[in-house]
Amino acid sequence: MGYDKSDELAINTIRVLAIDATIKSNSGHPGAPMGMAPVAHVLWKKFMTFNPKNPDWLNRDRFVLSNGHACMLQYTMLHLYKYAISMDDMKTFRQVDSILPGHPEAHDTPGIEVTTGPLGQGFANAVGLAIAQAHTGAVFNKPGFELVNNHTYMFFGDGCAMEGIASEAASTAGHLKLGNLIAIYDDNHISIDGDTKCAFTEDVSKRFEAYGWHVQHVEDGDHDLEGIEKAIQKAKDVTDKPSMIKLTTTIGFGSKLQGTGGVHGNPLKKDDAAQVKEKFGFDPEKSFVVPQEVYDSYAEHAAKGAAAEEEWNKLFEKYSSEHKTEAADLKRRLSKKLPEGWQEKLPIYSPKDPAIASRKLSETVLEKIHDVIPELLSGSADLTGSNNTRWKQAVDFQPPDLGIGEWSGRYLRYGVREHSMAGIMNGISAYGTLIPAGGTFLNFVSYAAGAVRLSSLSHQRVIYVATHDSIGLGEDGPTHQPIETLAHFRALPNMMVWRPADGNECSAAYYVALTSTGTPSILALTRQNLPQLEGSTIEKASKGGYVALEDKEAKITLVSTGSEVSICLEAVKYLAEHHQLKARVVSMPCTEVFDAQSKEYKLSVIPDGIASLSVEVMSTLGWEKYSHEQFGLNRFGASGPYLEVYKKFEFTPEGISKRAKATVEFWADVKPLRSPVNRAFQQLI
Amino acid sequence: MGYDKSDELAINTIRVLAIDATIKSNSGHPGAPMGMAPVAHVLWKKFMTFNPKNPDWLNRDRFVLSNGHACMLQYTMLHLYKYAISMDDMKTFRQVDSILPGHPEAHDTPGIEVTTGPLGQGFANAVGLAIAQAHTGAVFNKPGFELVNNHTYMFFGDGCAMEGIASEAASTAGHLKLGNLIAIYDDNHISIDGDTKCAFTEDVSKRFEAYGWHVQHVEDGDHDLEGIEKAIQKAKDVTDKPSMIKLTTTIGFGSKLQGTGGVHGNPLKKDDAAQVKEKFGFDPEKSFVVPQEVYDSYAEHAAKGAAAEEEWNKLFEKYSSEHKTEAADLKRRLSKKLPEGWQEKLPIYSPKDPAIASRKLSETVLEKIHDVIPELLSGSADLTGSNNTRWKQAVDFQPPDLGIGEWSGRYLRYGVREHSMAGIMNGISAYGTLIPAGGTFLNFVSYAAGAVRLSSLSHQRVIYVATHDSIGLGEDGPTHQPIETLAHFRALPNMMVWRPADGNECSAAYYVALTSTGTPSILALTRQNLPQLEGSTIEKASKGGYVALEDKEAKITLVSTGSEVSICLEAVKYLAEHHQLKARVVSMPCTEVFDAQSKEYKLSVIPDGIASLSVEVMSTLGWEKYSHEQFGLNRFGASGPYLEVYKKFEFTPEGISKRAKATVEFWADVKPLRSPVNRAFQQLI
Ligand SMILES: [Ca+2]
Ligand SMILES: [Ca+2]
Repeated sequence: MGYDKSDELAINTIRVLAIDATIKSNSGHPGAPMGMAPVAHVLWKKFMTFNPKNPDWLNRDRFVLSNGHACMLQYTMLHLYKYAISMDDMKTFRQVDSILPGHPEAHDTPGIEVTTGPLGQGFANAVGLAIAQAHTGAVFNKPGFELVNNHTYMFFGDGCAMEGIASEAASTAGHLKLGNLIAIYDDNHISIDGDTKCAFTEDVSKRFEAYGWHVQHVEDGDHDLEGIEKAIQKAKDVTDKPSMIKLTTTIGFGSKLQGTGGVHGNPLKKDDAAQVKEKFGFDPEKSFVVPQEVYDSYAEHAAKGAAAEEEWNKLFEKYSSEHKTEAADLKRRLSKKLPEGWQEKLPIYSPKDPAIASRKLSETVLEKIHDVIPELLSGSADLTGSNNTRWKQAVDFQPPDLGIGEWSGRYLRYGVREHSMAGIMNGISAYGTLIPAGGTFLNFVSYAAGAVRLSSLSHQRVIYVATHDSIGLGEDGPTHQPIETLAHFRALPNMMVWRPADGNECSAAYYVALTSTGTPSILALTRQNLPQLEGSTIEKASKGGYVALEDKEAKITLVSTGSEVSICLEAVKYLAEHHQLKARVVSMPCTEVFDAQSKEYKLSVIPDGIASLSVEVMSTLGWEKYSHEQFGLNRFGASGPYLEVYKKFEFTPEGISKRAKATVEFWADVKPLRSPVNRAFQQLI
Repeated sequence: MGYDKSDELAINTIRVLAIDATIKSNSGHPGAPMGMAPVAHVLWKKFMTFNPKNPDWLNRDRFVLSNGHACMLQYTMLHLYKYAISMDDMKTFRQVDSILPGHPEAHDTPGIEVTTGPLGQGFANAVGLAIAQAHTGAVFNKPGFELVNNHTYMFFGDGCAMEGIASEAASTAGHLKLGNLIAIYDDNHISIDGDTKCAFTEDVSKRFEAYGWHVQHVEDGDHDLEGIEKAIQKAKDVTDKPSMIKLTTTIGFGSKLQGTGGVHGNPLKKDDAAQVKEKFGFDPEKSFVVPQEVYDSYAEHAAKGAAAEEEWNKLFEKYSSEHKTEAADLKRRLSKKLPEGWQEKLPIYSPKDPAIASRKLSETVLEKIHDVIPELLSGSADLTGSNNTRWKQAVDFQPPDLGIGEWSGRYLRYGVREHSMAGIMNGISAYGTLIPAGGTFLNFVSYAAGAVRLSSLSHQRVIYVATHDSIGLGEDGPTHQPIETLAHFRALPNMMVWRPADGNECSAAYYVALTSTGTPSILALTRQNLPQLEGSTIEKASKGGYVALEDKEAKITLVSTGSEVSICLEAVKYLAEHHQLKARVVSMPCTEVFDAQSKEYKLSVIPDGIASLSVEVMSTLGWEKYSHEQFGLNRFGASGPYLEVYKKFEFTPEGISKRAKATVEFWADVKPLRSPVNRAFQQLI
């Protein structure tokens, strides 16, 4: 406690830097940084432990700015604490190739934990970070070794508070009693449409109490530094509930437009900026000025953080000698490398093995590997028995006092909350010690699209176990049958969409998903049984696409995925018998991984000189990239037993053969007949 | 009040029919129908006014089953009340081509108001239906003519309560004080993962109070019919708040597995079904039996509904003579036809007009047409000033006592709640008297994907105004720049994705969107200015794709959309000058509409014999359908001023020309060179 002029100076420095950076970029959001400067100052200086020289230190406190448009606040704090963000960098805010993009991106900027801006995402990420801390502490802490005990602090605004994903995540955090999570709600009564009274009049505090949170209110967030400090301290003291502090602030504090929407998303006018600077004792003629005493005062706190890390390093050294196995395991996890030889546990199948649904094949993989990959944390959005995401001996991740699990548990019950599941998984992955896998129906991965996109953008190793992947789910009908979903996520950069055709392909999908440290994966898995293919191996499938049935005299290549590959193999027989046509079959479990192979390999799989037909029971969009003609379903499905639904839409050997024949005839006169993968120029990827 | 054996018999009949239908289909969810049979009985018989002979009667009470998996409950009620669902139909539940699909689909089944099943959607739909009622009543009711005063009743379960979309919609409904909305929460403590205590321990009632709802609790939903009736009556009496009745029930009431997850999603075992029937006084050997007295008792209530409609028809006749204009307007709206000559208000541009951002062009359309299309209800998810969705004289739709709008207002402030905005728009559209248009950034239409999908599946005329449609939004950066979004929604059946290149195309987009009564539209609009094209007209653009620049000697067709069309036109000059190559340009504002044109027309636009290159600053996925080579962005964007971002990725006349040249050279040796729209067989659409 005890705040003086130097605190005021630091706070005003933060405000003025936010003004300068947004004016210089002629873009960005000064309002929230100006309003939240006081709480940022108190939080970072009095509570947060971190070492700017090593943003990767495991036990650092995590900070998440869920209202990511206020990023100039975060960039400013990082700059003032001398993370690797120079004043020159500050001047490049929102410019091409700057390390300070328009919204915080974890992989671009030192000290940014998670990628935020799309509203509500950071809220869910913070819940994930808190879950990961609780779990990691439970697994690795030993008597005398409090290795992992950091807090997660998160700021959120009215926009986040309105988003469904934040509501979902808040309910989850309350249920899980995450005492290590402290959220500060910037209650400034302003959103882009103006006063929040036009759309948002609920009692947010009461809502959070209903979720089981500890809730406080600091009424004067502009000035009451001691009140802010007391509230954060109290929140820390409450260890059996997440805490929310409603902080009433004035958006754009100091501006002539303070308290209005005018300061939300636009730089201040010149004269306004000048009067703010004058009022705060800054030279209105100068920009990007930081008084040395502000740097110095923050450097003092940074030094404490560095010392704390040094202490921790010593502790970890001692831990390494007393708990060798655990120490080695933790180090390995942080390196993102999987344990030596883990892949030998991946199940291998032969054609003699029975037909099995790929959701069951996935379950078998999890059953086999969970022992050797202790960082794997599975879960489901309330579809455990359908997604087959839980290994038999799994313990739930739950607050122990509920009597139904442990903090060290590795199975997470996300509830019927797909969007927050994905956002939480992004946070869990960002913590660094865990690989999250979470299940829902493929069709409902769409509910989570906002967060799935950020898995990709922020390079998180997150695995979406997406079962019931097509009209093959049968009776649940069109409301549940994906048509557009695979095209959607295939179009998403840095996302692997897998649709395995059998057991070996399913093992390959897990192999590539788990070893791709910077790329998330969606595993599209069937409800219905699939036979084990003749030609599949983990190695072949790991290339994304391969020849499942070769015939050097073939007149057509059938390119297919998942449940349709075995029907294509049947179609080969039908074509030979009824149409005297020879065909070959390519299985393409993952187009993104196939794309990354050499051109030579790709042309060996889908060669020049032969017509090709893709076969997949959903939207054909995108299949033109790998085939001359496409057989798919560009309409909604139907409710019924799956074999009848397949028959209705002609996904049968006969239906495929008919189209294969038409394809061969149609393309017969074209010379040379190029492979569709043979292209004029490279794409921007 | 006063319940007796006959009520018990009706309730048990509902339960037994749900058992029989799910056993017969060997699929479906008996648990919730059995648990909610009492409340369904009381609600339909004592409160709901409807005429089974005319499910389209405007002033009927609306019923929404948000927990749509319980649809056998709804189908049973409709059957018992003699909607056009026969007992034979009941036996075809979940079979191919049945009118009773696995989840309720509004366009398949008489009496189903909205398409539900994807959890939380029905909740938002019901809020939309209630909004539409409040608005329609405010516009059309006159002294002595209470034309529109129906209630919306909605059932929801734990799954819906957990979904973010329902949270968002509940917050909106509370803010809007929708006294005509009554929701009944099936508090049965069971979801698919078992006891809700594993993931859902919040205080739901308190949360709804925080949203501003009137909340009650009926503790014995299995037996306390009078309590249920009293609660619903009280909910009706509270007219300034939406009402939520928490109804504690036993899932699968009567089954040996009642109160467990075992009855949630699986048909009852034979012996269990037998003992339930015996217990309820039914013959365990017989199936699909309805005691005549149940039919009779329900027929009595249905007759009252028919009489109520008849009364209403008389009232409307009188109204038609006293309020001619309004009566004609209401009739016209219900026919889904737009007013005669409305399209003459659509703005037309010539190349001399200035460059304008398409979000501004869209605003101009709304400004020009809102007077002539009174059923147009605009809005935005808190991005009004960015989406340009509000005409100048618009009045907000708000409860009048807030002092910031009127029930008759035609601008809806959805808050930062994209998913519920879409779900609410589906409900508004389903009511029948309004055409909703709602804005957000294109990138955040993805947050709403679950509901957007249902706009398509359930044939709703909903317009998504999706601004900031590409890297052209500039500084906000990769978190906000869509890459995969257009591919996603182009792959969605029955959705028109428009990306207009100029003013005439923007008018065309609105023209087709508004006149397509069973198809929703996404209008992807720019933040940056676009010049008015030489070759565009509303008529040409209404075909989805057309030749924007013809050259009979062209060696290449550039196929482009939106902001890239004018760059392609520049590229034509660059190609002529630097590469002595002649090029033609096709503008393709809507691929779905183009697909629906005759093959002859399509081949006139993208002819055989000439190579083609698509140009669009996002994922190339799907463009192979309209071009031989594709220039796009298969990676995330960049934060910076938009012209610099375009330059970074070579979306310049030079960058396009380089690729055009490569395309021409690469395809020069192929004979015949087929147009990509010239295909071997028809797709299933
Ligand atoms: Ca705010
Ligand atoms: Ca339930």
